[in-house]
Amino acid sequence: MQKLLIVDGFQASGVAAGLKKNGKKDLGLLYSSLPATAAGVFTRNLVQAAPVVLDRERVKSGRCRAVVVNSGNANCCTGKRGAEDALAMAKSVADRLGLAEDEVLVASTGVIGEPLPINKVEAAVPALIDALKSDGLPDLAQAIMTTDTLPKAVAREGRINGKSFRMAAVAKGAGMIRPDMATMLCFVISDIGLNPEAMQQLLQSAADKSFNRITVDGDMSTNDTILFMANGASGVSVASPEHLRKVQAELDTVLVQLARLCVKDGEGATKLVEVRVKGAVTDRAARSVADTVANSNLVKTALFGEDANWGRILAAAGRAGAPLDQNRVDIYFDAVQLVRNGVGRGKELESEASAVLRKPELSLTIDLKMGQGYASVLTCDFSLDYVRINADYRS
Amino acid sequence: MQKLLIVDGFQASGVAAGLKKNGKKDLGLLYSSLPATAAGVFTRNLVQAAPVVLDRERVKSGRCRAVVVNSGNANCCTGKRGAEDALAMAKSVADRLGLAEDEVLVASTGVIGEPLPINKVEAAVPALIDALKSDGLPDLAQAIMTTDTLPKAVAREGRINGKSFRMAAVAKGAGMIRPDMATMLCFVISDIGLNPEAMQQLLQSAADKSFNRITVDGDMSTNDTILFMANGASGVSVASPEHLRKVQAELDTVLVQLARLCVKDGEGATKLVEVRVKGAVTDRAARSVADTVANSNLVKTALFGEDANWGRILAAAGRAGAPLDQNRVDIYFDAVQLVRNGVGRGKELESEASAVLRKPELSLTIDLKMGQGYASVLTCDFSLDYVRINADYRS
Repeated sequence: MQKLLIVDGFQASGVAAGLKKNGKKDLGLLYSSLPATAAGVFTRNLVQAAPVVLDRERVKSGRCRAVVVNSGNANCCTGKRGAEDALAMAKSVADRLGLAEDEVLVASTGVIGEPLPINKVEAAVPALIDALKSDGLPDLAQAIMTTDTLPKAVAREGRINGKSFRMAAVAKGAGMIRPDMATMLCFVISDIGLNPEAMQQLLQSAADKSFNRITVDGDMSTNDTILFMANGASGVSVASPEHLRKVQAELDTVLVQLARLCVKDGEGATKLVEVRVKGAVTDRAARSVADTVANSNLVKTALFGEDANWGRILAAAGRAGAPLDQNRVDIYFDAVQLVRNGVGRGKELESEASAVLRKPELSLTIDLKMGQGYASVLTCDFSLDYVRINADYRS
Repeated sequence: MQKLLIVDGFQASGVAAGLKKNGKKDLGLLYSSLPATAAGVFTRNLVQAAPVVLDRERVKSGRCRAVVVNSGNANCCTGKRGAEDALAMAKSVADRLGLAEDEVLVASTGVIGEPLPINKVEAAVPALIDALKSDGLPDLAQAIMTTDTLPKAVAREGRINGKSFRMAAVAKGAGMIRPDMATMLCFVISDIGLNPEAMQQLLQSAADKSFNRITVDGDMSTNDTILFMANGASGVSVASPEHLRKVQAELDTVLVQLARLCVKDGEGATKLVEVRVKGAVTDRAARSVADTVANSNLVKTALFGEDANWGRILAAAGRAGAPLDQNRVDIYFDAVQLVRNGVGRGKELESEASAVLRKPELSLTIDLKMGQGYASVLTCDFSLDYVRINADYRS
């Protein structure tokens, strides 16, 4: 795995710039020594951080050579000064790497509403560039952590026409995570050759299957960013729909793995739970039920308490706004069917379900038995530590 | 107040029937010795408890003489047997009070999905009827408590044409509370004379101003019920729109007071917070922003931590789906303006806002400065105790 994290033509680094109070790494850099194509997917929150506003514009060119990212401060709700700071952060890297300013993208994560200490960032850029190395992705993964307890990096190797290409990515998650928003930062690099239009489609499709299907707390960040860079260093290029499907498969796998890691490492999470809804009248109706159950505080606290409280699941499903007949619903905890036609099947099965709940990963399946609609969402439980972390976050 | 809780022609009682494990009161009765008119407002969850299904049908007659209610079991998701149990519960009271079966309504609250121990209910009905007394509302208030820490009862006296009438009500709340659903039970009685059609309109209007504007945890119950009975014992009857307005004012006050008590006593709540949104493009847009902020776990945990983290408020507002320009938004904690045009006004004001946050009741005002739309929602903070209560609820 460590070896796979090296992708031809890319270098990365992470240093401590003094943005985090605890002195840990908080400034990261991703750099392609070759020209690279790029695509991006961003938060849909109407309140957007300065770096998101900047990247959204710059990535339209389809080109990118470097991404500079800080943790400890979101540079969001920081007004005109925030926009200037995002520009300055990019410029500082561009100048020293000899790149055009608009070839550098920026990302930030951390507290909202406080001015970015841009002087600390600029002062650390020389060391950040000195630290660049081909096996530097783990340093970058550390530099973007906020309340994450573990750095998150994955890599894959694919083959097209007998030649191999690599794809590697880092991400941070933990809080403010919700479907359709993927509250996180994620940077994907590959040595394959791809045109920006294809990349954008591949990335959006992979995001919909991964980060747009996870929830930690129902809140949606102002800074969500997924950036994808490809530099063609492998000599492998994409020339057919079949090739595109192969790249899509690798990208999907990378993002799904990272999204799972983000939920597993959700703030205070002790369990990873897949909420599957089938038999809905449409896929959209299924998704609405899955989202409502996956975001229900009562369901999530029951998961934390390892209590097979299926009544809360059914009650959440009933308020999703999707058609549902309470006398038809079946509910399973993994393979244990606890509810048939809206009624519990008894205490014995509840103790079997409780055994399922003691597992670190499990699924809840809700079968509405009304149609063919299906959806699945990943969530985690809601623990005392979530409240502890978020009551104290800024202090 | 105690004296006001006595309403001519009404009696109430509460006893322990053994439904609650702790031996506390769990069965209550409300009885009008005179014929009474009635109206009801119920949950909009598609999953509905058996008593809700029954009452919704019976209240259409506009008549009601008694309401029997239990806590400790919601009689929800209990299938055909649940429907039979709700009927049996009403019949048991009707038989002994010499009423028609369909003049008795039923309500239940507690755990979902477990069969109602109807034998325990039936065995306790004689004692329940024996215990009826004109000053019995406090006993009823106790009998309907679940995770409530305090019984909730309020009363008012109004005047029409120089003659006075009384209105009294009890409620239970605590968890599964959300706007537009008011997860709770509430029973209102009055000695005024009213026709059922007018009562239904008065009740719906009062519910929209009170229980439909509160949230504790964003979850919506399967059992929410507000019932209103009026028996005309005061000799005051309603003969003009002006009279109706007077009754509406009293009813609004009663329900708003009870709704506030329910949020204040929300599971684990330490603060009562009014979220006001003004300057939205429409009232509906304002409500959408107010709901999203009032239900945001990140906002609510920050309130618990007494952290003036306005960035989370703005981030929640931005994902509400209502039009918003992040560069125009102002945010106030009570009268302290912390944010102007989307940007924080500095650390000094944050410490003033922190002082506001130490109060047990406060308001957050979000001014979008786009139009005239206004909405206000009551919420509470999100504490460690919420998770403790809900992780352990059934154990």
